[in-house]
Amino acid sequence: KRVVQGGNAIGGAISDDGSLVAVSNYEPGGVRVFDAATLEQVADIPAVGAEGRASKTVGLVDLPGRRFIYALYDAGEIWMADFSRAGAPSISKLQGIGKLPYDANVTPDGRHYLAGLFGEDGVVHVDLWREPLAARRILDGYGRGEEKLPVYKMPHLEGWASAGDVMLIPAVGRHELIAVDRRSFKEVGRVATHGQPVFAVARPDGRHVWVNYAHPRNDTIEVVDTTTLAIVHRMRPGPAVLHMEFTPRGHEIWVSVRDANRVDVYDTASFAKKAELAVTHPSGIFFTARANRIGQ
Amino acid sequence: KRVVQGGNAIGGAISDDGSLVAVSNYEPGGVRVFDAATLEQVADIPAVGAEGRASKTVGLVDLPGRRFIYALYDAGEIWMADFSRAGAPSISKLQGIGKLPYDANVTPDGRHYLAGLFGEDGVVHVDLWREPLAARRILDGYGRGEEKLPVYKMPHLEGWASAGDVMLIPAVGRHELIAVDRRSFKEVGRVATHGQPVFAVARPDGRHVWVNYAHPRNDTIEVVDTTTLAIVHRMRPGPAVLHMEFTPRGHEIWVSVRDANRVDVYDTASFAKKAELAVTHPSGIFFTARANRIGQ
Repeated sequence: KRVVQGGNAIGGAISDDGSLVAVSNYEPGGVRVFDAATLEQVADIPAVGAEGRASKTVGLVDLPGRRFIYALYDAGEIWMADFSRAGAPSISKLQGIGKLPYDANVTPDGRHYLAGLFGEDGVVHVDLWREPLAARRILDGYGRGEEKLPVYKMPHLEGWASAGDVMLIPAVGRHELIAVDRRSFKEVGRVATHGQPVFAVARPDGRHVWVNYAHPRNDTIEVVDTTTLAIVHRMRPGPAVLHMEFTPRGHEIWVSVRDANRVDVYDTASFAKKAELAVTHPSGIFFTARANRIGQ
Repeated sequence: KRVVQGGNAIGGAISDDGSLVAVSNYEPGGVRVFDAATLEQVADIPAVGAEGRASKTVGLVDLPGRRFIYALYDAGEIWMADFSRAGAPSISKLQGIGKLPYDANVTPDGRHYLAGLFGEDGVVHVDLWREPLAARRILDGYGRGEEKLPVYKMPHLEGWASAGDVMLIPAVGRHELIAVDRRSFKEVGRVATHGQPVFAVARPDGRHVWVNYAHPRNDTIEVVDTTTLAIVHRMRPGPAVLHMEFTPRGHEIWVSVRDANRVDVYDTASFAKKAELAVTHPSGIFFTARANRIGQ
C-alpha cells in the first residue's frame, strides 16, 4: 500500500509501541500521523504558530509514551503531540524559542530535546522530565564578535547525545564543534575541525564521535575522543562523504561516498577498511536496529 | 550442534562483532570462549587468582572491541580478556578488589564496570576508559553499624545503569536501594523498599526503575522515579515474581510470576495489565533486542 501524505516530507518517526508513524513536512508544513498497520491517517496537525504563520516542521522524533516532538522552522516554536490517550492528540506548545530552528534531536534516553537555531547563534534546550515544559537557551551567542562564514550545508543534529559526559554540537557555518556538558548544558570546550561539520555521530558507546563535512571539504572524516576532545584519527574516504551509520554495538561504521559510487565499511577500533560495496550515488544508510531506539 | 562446555554455567555474553560467545562457569570455574558460527572452542581461560585459588566467575559482560570483563568470586579479582587481535587473548587482571564479588554489570555505554561485594559492605568501580585500569571502592561500609539481615537471595546488578543521573543499586541483605551519582559514584540517597531487592531494572529511558524482591516478599513490584527517588507505584502481580523485561523502547514490561504459572504484560505509562500469558513456571524473560546492546 502506498499513501501520498504530503508534498515534501523531511523526517519521520515511529511511536514507542510501534503503532503510529509520524511524518513532518516542508510542504504543506505540519505533521501527519498514520496507523502503522493500515496507513490510515490518524491525525493532521497543521503547524501555525502564535503569529499565524504556517511553518515547515523539522527535528521530529518519538518520545516514550506515544508522544512526538518537533520544531516549527518559520514560527520559532517547539510542539509536543501526545497520543497516549484515545482520540485527538493533546498538543503542548513552547513559543518564542528563537529564530529559525533548523534541526533538533533528543538524547537517547528521551529526556533532553535540543534544537539548533539558524536565525541566531544559540541552541534551545527542553528538559522533557520537568513540568511544566520550558525552553531554555544554551550556548547563547557562541560565535559572538566573529565574522560569519557562508553556510554550505546546514548541519544535522544527530547522534551527538550520548558521547560520554559531553555532547558535541556542530556550530552553524563554523569549522568547529562545541562541547556541552550533559548535565549543566554549559559549554566545556571546542574542537577545531577540518570543515563545517554536517554530522557528528557518536559511536554507540560514546567514546568517539565521527564527523563529516560540508562541500567543498566533504571528502574527509575526523574522529574525536570525547574524553580529551582531541582528534584521534583523520581519513579521506573519497568525494562527497554524505552519511555514516554504526553497527548496533559500534564495531563497524558504514560510510556513503556518493561521488565514488561506494559504501565503505571501516573497523572502528583499528580504522582499517574492511569492505567496499559498489552502490550508485549512495546517501543515507539506516540499519534496522534503529527500531529499538528512542528518538529515531 | 550442541557443545557441553562446562558443568554449571552461570552467564554468557557475545562479542560486539557477533563472532565470539563467552561463558562463565561456577564449575569448573573460569571462562570459555567459542566461535559463534562453528561452536569450536577459541579459548579456555582458567580463573586462578593471585592466591592460587580456582574461582567461580560472575558478572561476565561484553565490551566494545571484542573484549569481555568478569569477576572472580572466590579470588576477589576482576579480569578483562581482549580478543581484538588474532591468537590468544590478552588478559588484564585487577587483584585484591574486595571479598566475594557476587555479581557485576557494565553501564550501557560500556564504560563503567561495577561489582557488588558479598564479603564486605561495598561496591567496586572500574572506569574502563581510564588507563591504566584501576579498581576503586565506592559505597564503602554502606551498612555500617547496623545489624545484618539474613540474605534470602543474592541481588542482581542489572539494568540499574541508565537511570537518569543516578544508578540504583540493591544493597545486600537490606530493604533498600542505594542511589549513586553517575559521574562521581558517590551515594546521593536511599530508597526504602518493600523487601530485599533482587532486580532493579531501569526502563529504557531511565526515568523509572522497577524492583522485585526476595522470598518471602516476592509477590510485589515497586516502581521508583529516578528524579525524586520516590516510589510512584506498587503492585502485587502474584506469587514469586522472578524477572522483568522491558520492550526495546520501554512501552511495556513483561513479568514472570512463577508460582501463578503466568507471564503478565503491563503498560509502563498507565501501569494497567495488558495481557496474561499462561506459562509453566516462568523464570527469565529475554528479548532479542538485547543483541544490539553493549554488555548483555
